[in-house]
Amino acid sequence: MSISPDARADLSRFWTTIEASAEIGKGRPGGLSRLALSDADRQMRDLFRSWCEEAGLTVEVDAAGSIFARRDGTDNSLPPILIGSHLDTQINGGRFDGIAGVLAGLEVVRRLNDLGHVTRRPIVVVNWTNEEGARFSPPMVASGCFVGTYDIGWVHDLIGDDGARFGDELERIGYKGDRPCKAGEIDAYFELHIEQGPILDAENREVGIVTGGYPVRGMRASFAGQTAHTGPTPMDLRRNALAAGARWLTAVDDLGWDFAVHDGKATAARLTAWPNKPGILSDTAEAVCDVRHPDPITTRAMAEKMRRALFEAAARCGCEAVIEDEWDWGGDIFDPELIEGLRHEARRMGFDWRDIQSQAGHDAYFLATHCPTAMIFAPCKNGITHNNEESCTPQDFVAGLNILLHAVVARADR
Amino acid sequence: MSISPDARADLSRFWTTIEASAEIGKGRPGGLSRLALSDADRQMRDLFRSWCEEAGLTVEVDAAGSIFARRDGTDNSLPPILIGSHLDTQINGGRFDGIAGVLAGLEVVRRLNDLGHVTRRPIVVVNWTNEEGARFSPPMVASGCFVGTYDIGWVHDLIGDDGARFGDELERIGYKGDRPCKAGEIDAYFELHIEQGPILDAENREVGIVTGGYPVRGMRASFAGQTAHTGPTPMDLRRNALAAGARWLTAVDDLGWDFAVHDGKATAARLTAWPNKPGILSDTAEAVCDVRHPDPITTRAMAEKMRRALFEAAARCGCEAVIEDEWDWGGDIFDPELIEGLRHEARRMGFDWRDIQSQAGHDAYFLATHCPTAMIFAPCKNGITHNNEESCTPQDFVAGLNILLHAVVARADR
Repeated sequence: MSISPDARADLSRFWTTIEASAEIGKGRPGGLSRLALSDADRQMRDLFRSWCEEAGLTVEVDAAGSIFARRDGTDNSLPPILIGSHLDTQINGGRFDGIAGVLAGLEVVRRLNDLGHVTRRPIVVVNWTNEEGARFSPPMVASGCFVGTYDIGWVHDLIGDDGARFGDELERIGYKGDRPCKAGEIDAYFELHIEQGPILDAENREVGIVTGGYPVRGMRASFAGQTAHTGPTPMDLRRNALAAGARWLTAVDDLGWDFAVHDGKATAARLTAWPNKPGILSDTAEAVCDVRHPDPITTRAMAEKMRRALFEAAARCGCEAVIEDEWDWGGDIFDPELIEGLRHEARRMGFDWRDIQSQAGHDAYFLATHCPTAMIFAPCKNGITHNNEESCTPQDFVAGLNILLHAVVARADR
Repeated sequence: MSISPDARADLSRFWTTIEASAEIGKGRPGGLSRLALSDADRQMRDLFRSWCEEAGLTVEVDAAGSIFARRDGTDNSLPPILIGSHLDTQINGGRFDGIAGVLAGLEVVRRLNDLGHVTRRPIVVVNWTNEEGARFSPPMVASGCFVGTYDIGWVHDLIGDDGARFGDELERIGYKGDRPCKAGEIDAYFELHIEQGPILDAENREVGIVTGGYPVRGMRASFAGQTAHTGPTPMDLRRNALAAGARWLTAVDDLGWDFAVHDGKATAARLTAWPNKPGILSDTAEAVCDVRHPDPITTRAMAEKMRRALFEAAARCGCEAVIEDEWDWGGDIFDPELIEGLRHEARRMGFDWRDIQSQAGHDAYFLATHCPTAMIFAPCKNGITHNNEESCTPQDFVAGLNILLHAVVARADR
């Protein structure tokens, strides 16, 4: 037999772990700055691991530093259920983005321990390394490697903005594990996350069942020009790579406004240049931009405009542009059966829920390429996130935690 | 009696010092990267000081690190003649920008030693610290302090892009001198420099007599926005300081093109932002731009457009903009009598010369606020500078060196 339909997660125990985690890697007032593979990340990992071990879980670390905390089932030959998210934060991050999902997984297994219930399939709680990409770009690199999108050698060789190498930092903090970074067979992946958008809060909903993500297309481009004196060099002889980059960012920001009426967005996210000094024109620049829109065809059109704008900006400034990297994600990627399972639990327990699309990237996007995947969104105040003002109350997690608990157990006992 | 009208500077001796200096602080092929107060700057200073001491000069260093190498006159109660420029370079600089003027001064005193001629007034060869502003902003900070524009405490507290403090770096390299950084009475200041523009080379002239500088107006501005997730945040709730900075740079670059027909220029020189990462909107940015035009009224109009564009860019992105610093220089600032003296020597020796306006900033601009000042330009290939391709031949300095020699002696013997 399974757990009682009336079983509920222990909200105050969950909140205690949230509060303890918010002491690690403090940033601006109320916020966190717990960058991937930093000392604070190590400290958080150590605490998470100790909680898992206290709960009787078997902890393994893979070659990308992701942590897998396993609770055996009655039939361990069956593929496991994974519940995961990430412990790292943005440089000016909040206290819920990521870790709420990991600690929700921990609460599920703790509750099962309380109830003395052993599921048929094993359950594994996962922390994915470097979800944010705030120190090492790209984001979600460990889950991407796990499903085979990235090569582990390439991941280890990533260099952060501070000059540190991913693989060296993994070793330094003691989280370069023995387990290969490679997904085996997985029965299902669940991720609870805060919405990072204003919809649930504005509609006063208790929870969102995520059907997929806004299609997103991004690119990283470099510009090559020529250093010269800013004084005498005539405009038509200038090859100012910084100006080219600024023109691209401006065009992309315009693109966001052009499509804003139907909730399109375009982001001028990053621009660096060299030497980037007064008195000298820059000969190199690098920039990152992306576009997103609820409709995939529109996203594709926006991406094409972003691409044309890149070469137009470079040409205007006498520079060469090269697209160094491109990515796209989102769409209706989550599993209909898992989604229906989540809706069923929401209805059964009487929560005020709605279907919702994610607007941010998540490790779940990569997992969805490998196994049935679903996500649950908890509301957050005004949708503010990637900011120290990010804010949730314990009440914001009641529906999400309990839907997760019952959906996971239903799947694991199947 | 004074020196013979037929006396000439020793070109090959001058060139030997240029070649020796080009070994110190090598950068990209053929160029230099001898940033102010770096180890390479110290090495160059040490060599320059040893040359001065060999030439019998008395070397003093002031509190801003500028080096003053003095050759006594027959009446040392009279105000001296200064000949100066700078030993530091841009991060991707050339082998002539700055140092040619310092070594020209050294050649003048060496030639006077050869001739056994002691001028009536003392002559002082000067190296001004941090002319380029490539490590510590603003440029020309030591000459500005010397004439009273900047306070020495403020100069010592400047922080470079590498986090180093100006005053600490002065001490580290052993060039924090005892002499107060304060100009006494000066009879005249001469500076020889490469043109850093294409005019002399294009017209095949041997030398330019500088009448003044293009009026320049620049500003450093900061933008304040708010970090937020790049995904869900709607365009109308974004306050992306990086996008605001990019918009300003784009508008300033456009401004340059608008006025290019009459040789106006506008420079998008520098942009930094924080966090400047994919996935998060930046909440702060800082940018430096300037405009210049041969006509001062047009420069003023361009500067006003640049200012309006700043607030327009900030408003478009929901950010606040603050002008952190503003500067203007240039105009007809040089001394008519000194200029006429230079023209006289050029005519007398039969050089192919022309009057010219400087388009770059020079320490001479600050000196001109304090004492009669003049500049001489040597041609440089295609006007390329602030680039490792900067190129001159010994022949490019023949006219400049000899005009400097005779004009200085005429003035010093007056």
